Amino acid sequence: MPMMPVTDSMFLVVETREHPMHVGGLQLFRKPENAGENYLSDLRRTMLATDNVRSVFRRRPSRPVNTAGYVRWAAEDNLELDYHFRHSALPQPGRIRELLEATSRWHSTLLDRHRPLWEIHLIEGLQDGRFAMYSKIHHSLMDGVSALRHLQGTLSDDPNDLDCPPPWGSRSNGTNGNGHAQPSLFSLAGKTFDQVAGIAPAAAKVAREAFREHTLTLPMQAPKTMLNVPIGGARRFAAQSWSLDRVRAVATAAGVSRNDVVLAMCSGALRDYLIEQSALPDAPLVAMVPVSLRRKAEGGEASGNNIGALLCNLGTDLADPALRLSAIHTSMTNGKKLFSSLTPLQTLLLSGVNVAQLGVSPIPGVVNNTRPPFNLVISNVPGPRKQMYWNGAALDGIYPASVLLDGQALNITLTSNGDNLDFGITGCRRSVPHLQRILTHLDTALAELEGAVGIK
Amino acid sequence: MPMMPVTDSMFLVVETREHPMHVGGLQLFRKPENAGENYLSDLRRTMLATDNVRSVFRRRPSRPVNTAGYVRWAAEDNLELDYHFRHSALPQPGRIRELLEATSRWHSTLLDRHRPLWEIHLIEGLQDGRFAMYSKIHHSLMDGVSALRHLQGTLSDDPNDLDCPPPWGSRSNGTNGNGHAQPSLFSLAGKTFDQVAGIAPAAAKVAREAFREHTLTLPMQAPKTMLNVPIGGARRFAAQSWSLDRVRAVATAAGVSRNDVVLAMCSGALRDYLIEQSALPDAPLVAMVPVSLRRKAEGGEASGNNIGALLCNLGTDLADPALRLSAIHTSMTNGKKLFSSLTPLQTLLLSGVNVAQLGVSPIPGVVNNTRPPFNLVISNVPGPRKQMYWNGAALDGIYPASVLLDGQALNITLTSNGDNLDFGITGCRRSVPHLQRILTHLDTALAELEGAVGIK
Repeated sequence: MPMMPVTDSMFLVVETREHPMHVGGLQLFRKPENAGENYLSDLRRTMLATDNVRSVFRRRPSRPVNTAGYVRWAAEDNLELDYHFRHSALPQPGRIRELLEATSRWHSTLLDRHRPLWEIHLIEGLQDGRFAMYSKIHHSLMDGVSALRHLQGTLSDDPNDLDCPPPWGSRSNGTNGNGHAQPSLFSLAGKTFDQVAGIAPAAAKVAREAFREHTLTLPMQAPKTMLNVPIGGARRFAAQSWSLDRVRAVATAAGVSRNDVVLAMCSGALRDYLIEQSALPDAPLVAMVPVSLRRKAEGGEASGNNIGALLCNLGTDLADPALRLSAIHTSMTNGKKLFSSLTPLQTLLLSGVNVAQLGVSPIPGVVNNTRPPFNLVISNVPGPRKQMYWNGAALDGIYPASVLLDGQALNITLTSNGDNLDFGITGCRRSVPHLQRILTHLDTALAELEGAVGIK
Repeated sequence: MPMMPVTDSMFLVVETREHPMHVGGLQLFRKPENAGENYLSDLRRTMLATDNVRSVFRRRPSRPVNTAGYVRWAAEDNLELDYHFRHSALPQPGRIRELLEATSRWHSTLLDRHRPLWEIHLIEGLQDGRFAMYSKIHHSLMDGVSALRHLQGTLSDDPNDLDCPPPWGSRSNGTNGNGHAQPSLFSLAGKTFDQVAGIAPAAAKVAREAFREHTLTLPMQAPKTMLNVPIGGARRFAAQSWSLDRVRAVATAAGVSRNDVVLAMCSGALRDYLIEQSALPDAPLVAMVPVSLRRKAEGGEASGNNIGALLCNLGTDLADPALRLSAIHTSMTNGKKLFSSLTPLQTLLLSGVNVAQLGVSPIPGVVNNTRPPFNLVISNVPGPRKQMYWNGAALDGIYPASVLLDGQALNITLTSNGDNLDFGITGCRRSVPHLQRILTHLDTALAELEGAVGIK
């Protein structure tokens, strides 16, 4: 087994009980119509019997106790599948509320480093007859985007396809494209640092040049908020879906992008939440928004994707939802314009500047004494465009649960899923009280945006 | 809040993800006959509404990250009860097997040091209509004996007493005697070292004198076995009750103590288990057995209890159950005779010698290269003598889940409960495969003992 790249082992080295470094996802399924009483236990037994295991799900650190930061992967020959794939249940009345409470707990505990770094719960007991699956994968194995992509790769758009692999397996024909996951921003930041070691002055020059002609939101201008504090180990997770049509309609009416509308929903919700907590700062909140930038190659053809880390002024100081949407649109447009004028290396460098400070957050004391580089990450990850199925069960929702870092007590990650946008909100249980209210505020914010553009 | 005694803070300092330092207990209850459909959720709501919280359940480390080993307690003013008291459920079919699997998982994860160091699960979904409660308390707050005693203090022998406190509360009249918990062996070992600092030569002399006239099982004579290896973080927990009458009948017929019979059950079960694993050593296993020694004061009257740590030759090399029982009886009798001839200080010193080596086990490398001081701890903790109730629900079982230390991958702790002996077996999930088979072997061992003394 090879030496882990530093960008991966970093997630093992900085992990503490306050900062678990795993990403998660909550999937909601509708059982097939012909499902019998033992559907779930039969499903679990079938999955446990397969020997389809992607190699990444066999990897464990060769030395569980990290000392100097150099970590090697070992392959686990005796994978104890029934340890990793767990059968769990919700207490009555089995509402989404009980599901989110259970997910919050599972997302809070550390993975066992003596084994491959993942756990998947098959969850029964939802009162509406659906079932759920919570997956937890260490960031050193996969970042959040890759993990979602991997899970999607185990699904099918055919309800009659009963040959879907287990969540830790892969399609034998290799068509799920797992091998080509985009780099996440975190690993991108890490790689940037590798690549620019010794050329920091050049990086600074790129950034200066880049900023000169644009009205950009700069790092370290974000206000200090209740979301930017040292965090504890416990998490709270909330999730809900909104209709893509509603978001699309606002975007069309306002002449902005769908992601602008999503950011405006988040902005309105954060404003309401912070007002409720008597904690709204005078200055607008700044979100770090990973964006996928399609660029033209020299020949004029699209040449793949490029990821950048934009800082977006959320306009939370503005009471009017239309003005907030407009401020967000301007901030995002300027940021994207800048990125599109950069070379790929310059993009990496600028993104690196934006996320750089996160790397030092696990050092005690840093969070309390410095301004945050931004207030939270809001990440919109592309998901399946069609209704997907897993061995005949329809995927109703797929909600990402993210990693929190010190000084970043809240994360909003959403993914498109057929006709919906599925939001997953991960928060530090201590620093972000009543996290689930953000769901209500998101709903209010979307309705307000609809009102502002004259739809309702 | 006071400074923690070193003997308590030690459990925070040595804790790692491989060695969680909490004790646990699994309680099984029968619902009252008039229990309605919402019995459990009503019960939970009532408990969450009380403000009866024993001060020890408000304590958290003032600095969650331990550095130099000096830890102070802080009192948590905003106790988030619904974080600590959790509502959980078992997947179908809801057998004891599912309960033990869930308990194994809960017992494996670390407590959040940003909060008071305990969690209690109220568990529904048992197919027989009973409910369960799993409690997890950090060893720095309470040792296992005190924790069991505390839980018993919240019960009542009156099925009509509906005024029982929550598991984290206390009786207002203070009659549950929580203040007078006996020291556990671990804290006793710690205190011994405190007291004998500087008088090690004296201690050695006591030990030499003590051993001279007795055939004693000495520390460090235990064979190296599969149970004495470095352990991982995951646990497996198994539990079952046996009738006290059966054990008593064997003890009477053989002229030995009930604890001798319990040890012989464990010995037979361990022998069968190790044979099954092709891992039975030639030399007999040695158990560390905490014993309560009643001693005569000078006036001839009983003057309270005194705890000693006996090493017992389990006779696992002997195929005949009668010979094993006899070997155990001899070993225990000699050990107790010795202890009874010692002064209280000498008892402490000898116990200290017996458990001393455990203190160094968290140091990497020590486990692999030295002989174990003993092979496992078998602890018999006195429990309630009558049928007990908690707000009308009858206590069917109370099974202790223990702390494992490096080099000690298995622990058997049992407690008497009315007409039963309730065994809790805690093992490292990696090192002790098929732990639950020890339950079957315990049953076989008891039947063999009955046969050997001519009862059946």
